[in-house]
Amino acid sequence: MQTRYVAAAIQMNSGPDKYTNLEHAVGYIHQAAAAGAKLIVLPEMFNCMGPYSHLVAEAEPIPGTTSQALSKVAAEESIYLLAGSIIERSEDGGVFYNTSMLFSPAGEMIVRYRKIHLFDIQLSDQRETDESHWIKAGNDIAVVDTTCGRMGLSICYDLRFPELYRQLVGRGAEIFLAPAAFRKTTGQDHWEVLLRARAIENQAYIIAANQCGTHVPKIVTYGHSMIIDAWGNILTRADSKKSVIFAEIDLNALHKVRGQLPAFKHRRDFSPANRKN
Amino acid sequence: MQTRYVAAAIQMNSGPDKYTNLEHAVGYIHQAAAAGAKLIVLPEMFNCMGPYSHLVAEAEPIPGTTSQALSKVAAEESIYLLAGSIIERSEDGGVFYNTSMLFSPAGEMIVRYRKIHLFDIQLSDQRETDESHWIKAGNDIAVVDTTCGRMGLSICYDLRFPELYRQLVGRGAEIFLAPAAFRKTTGQDHWEVLLRARAIENQAYIIAANQCGTHVPKIVTYGHSMIIDAWGNILTRADSKKSVIFAEIDLNALHKVRGQLPAFKHRRDFSPANRKN
Repeated sequence: MQTRYVAAAIQMNSGPDKYTNLEHAVGYIHQAAAAGAKLIVLPEMFNCMGPYSHLVAEAEPIPGTTSQALSKVAAEESIYLLAGSIIERSEDGGVFYNTSMLFSPAGEMIVRYRKIHLFDIQLSDQRETDESHWIKAGNDIAVVDTTCGRMGLSICYDLRFPELYRQLVGRGAEIFLAPAAFRKTTGQDHWEVLLRARAIENQAYIIAANQCGTHVPKIVTYGHSMIIDAWGNILTRADSKKSVIFAEIDLNALHKVRGQLPAFKHRRDFSPANRKN
Repeated sequence: MQTRYVAAAIQMNSGPDKYTNLEHAVGYIHQAAAAGAKLIVLPEMFNCMGPYSHLVAEAEPIPGTTSQALSKVAAEESIYLLAGSIIERSEDGGVFYNTSMLFSPAGEMIVRYRKIHLFDIQLSDQRETDESHWIKAGNDIAVVDTTCGRMGLSICYDLRFPELYRQLVGRGAEIFLAPAAFRKTTGQDHWEVLLRARAIENQAYIIAANQCGTHVPKIVTYGHSMIIDAWGNILTRADSKKSVIFAEIDLNALHKVRGQLPAFKHRRDFSPANRKN
């Protein structure tokens, strides 16, 4: 068990070409590993950004080209690697998921998380987004033990749903992984606050790897990837350009926070079975 | 129904003398009402700050001196008035609660909320706090309809528990009332983030009236009372001194936010009955 180690978040500007994106991702992973990172987090849809019609056309099964490439690089570098997300195609080709995979230092996929909250909005100043028209929502909460701590998985829009992180921390998560393609419009108003709140209220690290820059079709993502500790301090933060950021994870510091301010023990049960009113 | 009106938060530096505090509170209420506020929020324990031994010695039944004084001023000014909190003594004198009361413009107490999450912490650099040794936790969620919108009640440490605000918004709350005596130590790191997160994730206004300055016994509270809109914008913010702050509440703007980004409709049910794993 490693209680202190370096983690990295990779901020990408993924385009529509899968092989270019994959090549960039692998390059960044080698760079982060060379700098000492033991846990490396890629953003949502790191291998392909574009309209949903394109994303589903480029979707892959798991195992598939992208998952096999990342399994290989995780094993080569002997690191934990979160493949932020890809669009996963079901075996029969009929269903798509927005899916994150965590690979172990042996290159094994130790957990798969299919995005639970799909992003359907209509802001007045931009086109509508209708992820649920294309993608099927996952139903399973993903928490996994590693030698770098217990990880809880989430993707982008999930950040708006505190109840998901309560489920993750309720199952012992110490580190939330939050790959994203969070837009600039909402990101500048909500990204940092939501990330810090999830860390503070759950007393967990959060490693948030975002997309940045302009993507086809005229989508602008916010960048500002961050690693935040269990007290809510921003340990490191990217700007709006492509980059790799690093911070030290210290699980003993996390457990000190949880001991001093044992908020999680003070939770009350609001489930219907326990309510009078 | 008023969909646009002015709300005020009163930031106090309450001391151990109840009658002095009450006199100050009533003065601030008249001042805020004269400036046009239709909803006025006092901080937690506005009528008495001090060690818990003193607070319980000064506790009052409801109705009692403090509640009657506030009922009177609410009716005089024809305003909604949140009596942030007082220590309430049960009829038989054996049990104490940290209790918030909302008075209508007719002076009627339309809802009473007993703090659900009690504050027991032990930070290394300050004495321990053991609210639950002195005070009994409430069990009932408090949401009430008014002609100024549907209000959801909370007190101070409750802010760390997103599931409470999910209960409030699930019952239709549009405005969260958050009186507090939030400490400087934790406030500077957590207060603004938690307030903004509750507003953003629930798309609700939050009116947070805090205590400020130094109180017996060497407790320093953070001030920085705020009114935040349903997009998470801080509309107004106090510094660390006694003050009254004002902002316009616009329920139509709130419903526009909820329409554009209908996150609450995208909630998934993680209750045990609905979980496979």
